[in-house]
Amino acid sequence: MDPPDYGPLDAELADRDADAFVHVGGRSDDTLRYLARIPEFNRSRAFVYDGGEATLVVPRGDGTRAGEGFPGRVVAADRDPTAPGRRAAELLAGGRVLVPRDIPHDAAVWLERAGCEPTSTDAVERMRARKTDAEIDRIRVVQEAVRLGMARGEALLAGADVEGGRAVADGDPLTTEGLRRAIDAELVRQGVRPAGNTEVRVGSIRVRSGDRREIPPDATVVVSLSPRGPRGYHGALVRTFVAESAGGWERRASVAVESARRAGLAELEAGVEVESVRGEVIAEAGAFGFDAAAPDPVRGIGLARRESPLPGETVPSGAVVVLAASVADPAEGAVAVADPVVVGDDASILGDYPLGITPRPDAAPDSDRDPTPPRRGS
Amino acid sequence: MDPPDYGPLDAELADRDADAFVHVGGRSDDTLRYLARIPEFNRSRAFVYDGGEATLVVPRGDGTRAGEGFPGRVVAADRDPTAPGRRAAELLAGGRVLVPRDIPHDAAVWLERAGCEPTSTDAVERMRARKTDAEIDRIRVVQEAVRLGMARGEALLAGADVEGGRAVADGDPLTTEGLRRAIDAELVRQGVRPAGNTEVRVGSIRVRSGDRREIPPDATVVVSLSPRGPRGYHGALVRTFVAESAGGWERRASVAVESARRAGLAELEAGVEVESVRGEVIAEAGAFGFDAAAPDPVRGIGLARRESPLPGETVPSGAVVVLAASVADPAEGAVAVADPVVVGDDASILGDYPLGITPRPDAAPDSDRDPTPPRRGS
Repeated sequence: MDPPDYGPLDAELADRDADAFVHVGGRSDDTLRYLARIPEFNRSRAFVYDGGEATLVVPRGDGTRAGEGFPGRVVAADRDPTAPGRRAAELLAGGRVLVPRDIPHDAAVWLERAGCEPTSTDAVERMRARKTDAEIDRIRVVQEAVRLGMARGEALLAGADVEGGRAVADGDPLTTEGLRRAIDAELVRQGVRPAGNTEVRVGSIRVRSGDRREIPPDATVVVSLSPRGPRGYHGALVRTFVAESAGGWERRASVAVESARRAGLAELEAGVEVESVRGEVIAEAGAFGFDAAAPDPVRGIGLARRESPLPGETVPSGAVVVLAASVADPAEGAVAVADPVVVGDDASILGDYPLGITPRPDAAPDSDRDPTPPRRGS
Repeated sequence: MDPPDYGPLDAELADRDADAFVHVGGRSDDTLRYLARIPEFNRSRAFVYDGGEATLVVPRGDGTRAGEGFPGRVVAADRDPTAPGRRAAELLAGGRVLVPRDIPHDAAVWLERAGCEPTSTDAVERMRARKTDAEIDRIRVVQEAVRLGMARGEALLAGADVEGGRAVADGDPLTTEGLRRAIDAELVRQGVRPAGNTEVRVGSIRVRSGDRREIPPDATVVVSLSPRGPRGYHGALVRTFVAESAGGWERRASVAVESARRAGLAELEAGVEVESVRGEVIAEAGAFGFDAAAPDPVRGIGLARRESPLPGETVPSGAVVVLAASVADPAEGAVAVADPVVVGDDASILGDYPLGITPRPDAAPDSDRDPTPPRRGS
């Protein structure tokens, strides 16, 4: 992975007059994965930064790769689940210690017992909001796979026949689960993990993964993808298709959504408030007579599907955000689009994908061609 | 999902003379997913149990399905990340409050500010260690998909040709990444998520996901699968294959591993210490002249890949554990097997899979046959 830059932690320690920064987290803790620059590990470990030196505390017997890839010092702890936090506290000589607000409570208690004063900081959220070029490249590589997954779904919808009022593919009624599995298989073929984030919405109904709901030929189908690449970073793409559109509501909704997306994109630039972009998206959909339906038209994406910048925050230069626009009507259906956008002096969509609601039969790549070769660093 | 039984929480509240139990957790927090009986959600929410009533605190604007499936009361909180913990504290009237040891520190601080005394408990770990029949059935359904995924990998290895000393499949050298993607595609076809847990080990080297390493025809190939079903429960299976075995080390290692597995299985019963089973597995491998390599020959599995019972704990009746046996030699390679085992008065393997190291060409199901129909509750 790219060499870590703990400079913002140094600045935060100085600003807050603190002696060290500590976090403890397990396999699914993005904060720890970000700080340790290790995409995968098993049991809880601790990260300690005391201004100059980064230390990773790893429980004994945690398989191989215990500290592989970590650029600092690696220290062993006992095997029990509380050991890394306890060991981290032992490494410190008291004083004010900055911690993420969601550090496990037992780790904070160990710090207190060791004479430290744990004080919460959002420094890591702010660091994560500003992507390095290497991080943007990782998201870009995942997004290539996302585009191919979406194209696979689009082609399946385009290829469906209508028989007796039902959409049929390969002789069977087309279902949400069939569509989801076909897309996920393409994502896997491209070397990324669907990560449980592939969602298919029929009409205005969100369908649970595993539920096999028939897709009526005239229903809006919202496909949402947000897989995870091998280095942990996510892509994101939402598109809406109607296999046999009769025009009407979904055409008007689609025009409103595309216009709302353009308005959001025009507003997005370094230094803008998330709420301000959100306001533009909602106002523009409203100008077409629609209520915007996406709860979060703008949110950061990276090691987490949803991270800073979030509502109430400012979009920093270097942010990668998902810009979403969406309208829904219980009687008619839903139309939604979303794309990742890199924000600098202006905003540029990462790996753009066509916007039409009529699925294109030639959207998917040839199924027999070689998948994208895996790239390190993605 | 199955109706929740918070009875053990009632018992723990009485035993500890406490007024309530509280936890706060996000999307990837197994404890919260277990307590709320909701397999998927987005942002952090809080669970409050005060002896009789369960309450889920959900942030506003968290999309649809906010409290869907939760059997108790649902209460809204503000949108900011600390709101559910703050709201949970407001619901309580002080007193001793039991919390998991890894509750986020800010939530514990909100409880303290509300006049509560947060005290850690391992009650949820103990509840989770004892699976209900519905939970065992969920693991069983995932395990069916796991078996088909392993069979797909086995057939790919069996079908490889040796050309110029290299293993070749479909004209290209067989690689760890090709094998992993083929297995993951089958898992997805079967409706489960690889969850980043598919690992391929060549010789004694663990290969990172995304790394394309050639598989020599005479190398040991350890395939480890632990996908997640749609309701969040995991399966687990490890098998070892050698495409063109010359006998020798891997045959002897395989005999030792199978014998170690039998010894562990014979020792596994309700009430046994994890360490005792571990001791049997290691001693039996040692009797064949091998050092056992698996760090954890016995561990619980469920919503987490690794949960109670863990080393230092007792295996309760109703536990589902992964029993692993493994030996490795840097010069020769590695042989490993692992299976999920349901523990009652005795131990029974969930969905057994053949043990041989010679890959069977007919292991995989016909690629065109219908995948297993999705089952609710898995």
